[in-house]
Amino acid sequence: MVKISRIICNNLQQYMKDVKLFLTDVDGCMTDGGMYYTESGDEFKRFCVYDGMGIVLLRKAGIPCGILTSENTAIGLKRGQKLGLEYIYTGVGRVVDGVKMTKLDAANEICKELGITLENVCFVGDDVNDLDLLQHAGVAACPANAVAVVKAVPGIIHLTKNGGDGAIRELCEMILAAKKA
Amino acid sequence: MVKISRIICNNLQQYMKDVKLFLTDVDGCMTDGGMYYTESGDEFKRFCVYDGMGIVLLRKAGIPCGILTSENTAIGLKRGQKLGLEYIYTGVGRVVDGVKMTKLDAANEICKELGITLENVCFVGDDVNDLDLLQHAGVAACPANAVAVVKAVPGIIHLTKNGGDGAIRELCEMILAAKKA
Amino acid sequence: MVKISRIICNNLQQYMKDVKLFLTDVDGCMTDGGMYYTESGDEFKRFCVYDGMGIVLLRKAGIPCGILTSENTAIGLKRGQKLGLEYIYTGVGRVVDGVKMTKLDAANEICKELGITLENVCFVGDDVNDLDLLQHAGVAACPANAVAVVKAVPGIIHLTKNGGDGAIRELCEMILAAKKA
Amino acid sequence: MVKISRIICNNLQQYMKDVKLFLTDVDGCMTDGGMYYTESGDEFKRFCVYDGMGIVLLRKAGIPCGILTSENTAIGLKRGQKLGLEYIYTGVGRVVDGVKMTKLDAANEICKELGITLENVCFVGDDVNDLDLLQHAGVAACPANAVAVVKAVPGIIHLTKNGGDGAIRELCEMILAAKKA
Repeated sequence: MVKISRIICNNLQQYMKDVKLFLTDVDGCMTDGGMYYTESGDEFKRFCVYDGMGIVLLRKAGIPCGILTSENTAIGLKRGQKLGLEYIYTGVGRVVDGVKMTKLDAANEICKELGITLENVCFVGDDVNDLDLLQHAGVAACPANAVAVVKAVPGIIHLTKNGGDGAIRELCEMILAAKKA
Repeated sequence: MVKISRIICNNLQQYMKDVKLFLTDVDGCMTDGGMYYTESGDEFKRFCVYDGMGIVLLRKAGIPCGILTSENTAIGLKRGQKLGLEYIYTGVGRVVDGVKMTKLDAANEICKELGITLENVCFVGDDVNDLDLLQHAGVAACPANAVAVVKAVPGIIHLTKNGGDGAIRELCEMILAAKKA
Repeated sequence: MVKISRIICNNLQQYMKDVKLFLTDVDGCMTDGGMYYTESGDEFKRFCVYDGMGIVLLRKAGIPCGILTSENTAIGLKRGQKLGLEYIYTGVGRVVDGVKMTKLDAANEICKELGITLENVCFVGDDVNDLDLLQHAGVAACPANAVAVVKAVPGIIHLTKNGGDGAIRELCEMILAAKKA
Repeated sequence: MVKISRIICNNLQQYMKDVKLFLTDVDGCMTDGGMYYTESGDEFKRFCVYDGMGIVLLRKAGIPCGILTSENTAIGLKRGQKLGLEYIYTGVGRVVDGVKMTKLDAANEICKELGITLENVCFVGDDVNDLDLLQHAGVAACPANAVAVVKAVPGIIHLTKNGGDGAIRELCEMILAAKKA
């Protein structure tokens, strides 16, 4: 059990040093949770320039980055492509062709490809559909606006900033500092 | 009188247990009250991902959900369809074909279809055109940003969050907790 | 001098009772001052549902309403038309066909048409180009986010809410209450 | 070294008097850092009416204004054109035709054209890619939401307002006041 060892050993700094993959939810983590709808049914979301720079800095440090979202819109994809993200999973948690892949399944798939374990994964989530991966990732974090049940995950990092207002950047800087220490 | 009994009996928990229909206004309740206009006259609104998950959880628990808005745009309809809402009323309070249906009328129509009473209805409103239904629903609630006259409705639940910032989710969790208790 | 008499007589309530025309700036007063730009150069603005209802209530009470904006986009026009505003002036303060009309000029033009004086005008402004009319209107008000020089206008009402967050509604309710008192 | 002399001499007022060129970053300085994405990949940003008026006032006072952004979208260009900016640099810091121009390079290019030095330049920035110019401009300033490493630049002015919420206007008024003193 990753999380138990993390708490017992009080070694969050070591887990941050060992991060080899950075994953995050989109709505409420990379955005403020706002979902804008037009009359024609189009949607858009508000991302944050500081988070973008944080991901640029992580990738320069050799850490691949990705997003895992249950949404099926192309918005996360567009933002992910602009940032050059290595992994973009949309529709996670929905049944596609009779198969349902959770966020934990998605992370395991990427870990297998990279030859790493969940202990090397940093994941940011804010709502109930993020719980499974948050409970198993080496480093788990949530923005200040996360729901109560997410904030209660043992050992989770409570970021001081809200989603879409620099929460991702805050965590990127913590990881980069741990790796330099 | 539903509201009087609610206050006298101090049985809000019982009313929440008995909720069989969840209705809400749109602007100011599911949104932050912002109405965005483009030069071509198109409009859009900002909804909240946490409210969306709250409604998903209510519907999984077997409670049908709906929106009642006086607006005539297709925006509420688009958001409602995405969330799979059972009832979507637009243009409520406006005269259509010589007939004017208030929000109370709309709720009564749905109650008749479902074979329930207004005592089983939970309604969220924030402005003067929500007053009639707020005064008769078994559970009445308003977001923190509601106007003074709405906050003064006897027995109304004052949610701590603003519309578009999780007020609906806050109420969904209260209802789900009451039903589990 | 309207403003001096207003201060000396301490009769703001009387001026509010006597309001026969409600005028407001758009950006920063009916909006939060945000000006959204797309890549194609289109613009949009964020209005507030509570202000809309406030204007509906004023017009029901027989008070004509209008907007005076220096902007030349169609956005204010679209919002104004939706609210059924009696007067919509755009491009105020700009030179058109060699003529420059200030906000004070525009208000005088409307007063002449209605057979009223500037003492019967309520105007909301937030920046330097609103100063002339603010200094002469019977009732002058500014949102909490107004610039310092506007807040310093003698006798101006300092609304507690920001533009686009209900400042207009706040003033509408003050006027309606004064007229009922 | 401009910055050292600025600190030793405690002559920020003099540097503000001597400003002959006003430059600013876009995202996080003229906006709140929000980057809005639609499903089709279009983007838009939120600017502030008060900043626009501040730039109008600077330009009326004879100070040319410009923006320096690393972004390649046309949004900054559209806003800049509306405000009549003299200098609009996009894609700064990116490699174009094998050449990479930093923000410091861009400022030097404009200074050469105007026959002024970096001591006459006022620059507003908020993130790591603004550091080089912030360290060399006569007057350096950052909005309240700037990242920690920018706030730590020696002698930098910490504006009280956030980007997109009047930070630029705040600085414009400081410069105009210094020039009048």
